[in-house]
Amino acid sequence: MIELIAFDADDTLWHTERLYLTARQQFRDLIGGRVSPAELDALVHDTEMRNLPYYGFGITSFILSLIETAIDVTGGGISGAEIGRLLVIAREMISADVELMDEVEETLAALAEDYPLLLITKGDLLHQTDKVARSGLGRYFSAVEVVADKTPQTYGDILARRHVAPERFVMIGNSPRSDVLPVATLGGRAIHVPDANTWVYDMVDLPDDLPGPIFRVSRLSEVVPLIRGL
Amino acid sequence: MIELIAFDADDTLWHTERLYLTARQQFRDLIGGRVSPAELDALVHDTEMRNLPYYGFGITSFILSLIETAIDVTGGGISGAEIGRLLVIAREMISADVELMDEVEETLAALAEDYPLLLITKGDLLHQTDKVARSGLGRYFSAVEVVADKTPQTYGDILARRHVAPERFVMIGNSPRSDVLPVATLGGRAIHVPDANTWVYDMVDLPDDLPGPIFRVSRLSEVVPLIRGL
Repeated sequence: MIELIAFDADDTLWHTERLYLTARQQFRDLIGGRVSPAELDALVHDTEMRNLPYYGFGITSFILSLIETAIDVTGGGISGAEIGRLLVIAREMISADVELMDEVEETLAALAEDYPLLLITKGDLLHQTDKVARSGLGRYFSAVEVVADKTPQTYGDILARRHVAPERFVMIGNSPRSDVLPVATLGGRAIHVPDANTWVYDMVDLPDDLPGPIFRVSRLSEVVPLIRGL
Repeated sequence: MIELIAFDADDTLWHTERLYLTARQQFRDLIGGRVSPAELDALVHDTEMRNLPYYGFGITSFILSLIETAIDVTGGGISGAEIGRLLVIAREMISADVELMDEVEETLAALAEDYPLLLITKGDLLHQTDKVARSGLGRYFSAVEVVADKTPQTYGDILARRHVAPERFVMIGNSPRSDVLPVATLGGRAIHVPDANTWVYDMVDLPDDLPGPIFRVSRLSEVVPLIRGL
């Protein structure tokens, strides 16, 4: 018997990663020639990982890492005007239209009839809250939890506050690392909805002996009959 | 009869604004000569205000605004190396030791005996959560709410979730704009603990006909007898 269902937001309810992919391409074009695209991507990734403990997840963190990489790669020689271009990209990403994934509205509407729905997302507090408002999806959710990271403890705290046992909780999302692994580790049920555009950081191998079951669906609407059968 | 007490964090429980003052001085030194210090401060302020809807509150937002101002003031001529100096300042600010204000520990310990305490702070989710952990003060609070902004609706939502009427709620903080005005507007009780270092954005005139009462104390420990007498 399921008591609570939670959805991830970025690349589960609305497209996000493709904004990053576009920005990464714009960054390659800006820096182009100094190092190979593959080398540049690797440097950006290293900078992002190094900065996570400082800046967390989200667009402001990402742009600060691009600026830092640009400075490093050019030995400090990049101009302020070029860095200004990265700030424009940041604002474009933050104010980009919220584009829903397929079958989102009908899936939420169907589940919201029978279950309380939660939205659990990591990233910039302001930006994530703003996207919920602009998506028009807020009415389906009893609460929105913007968290600094998605660990077993994050989910454990959210469930404890609501007095929900992990086995009565289902988490739905595209990220093996953030949506599936910590929930199954905790003994909750995780439904993985893979998306072609998923950040490399979010891709991890899932051990097959976790306490909670992991399901995989190819379309979001499949979660409705799946959950009803649990 | 008071049912719930909340504290602001930055410049109420621990020093924050002086990190910003130091950074602003470092920024003046970096840009120095191109415009007067007063002019530069005004440009930074304008950039910060323009960026609030994009980046929200906190250090990453602040640093992105410094970078943008530096580019604007120099007509794009500032070097990557100089901008790199601003990134160093960002990381120094984020990893700075948490320095408690006077009388914090004893005040929280006294109130926590009789009331549930909440911490309500705006800013970067990760950084604010991290400071709570590093401050050692987490044990006094039943919950920590990091919010994107502090409006009457923010406080109204927090109280509604806990089924607490505004008149049974006390908010304690240094910011007239964020801690006092919205709470008194809602009919809650606000205790203003002025601090010499308060961001100009947080300074507003308080009308004297608000629904909720406003108290002012000169030392944090004075809130204990004040609240016990309410």
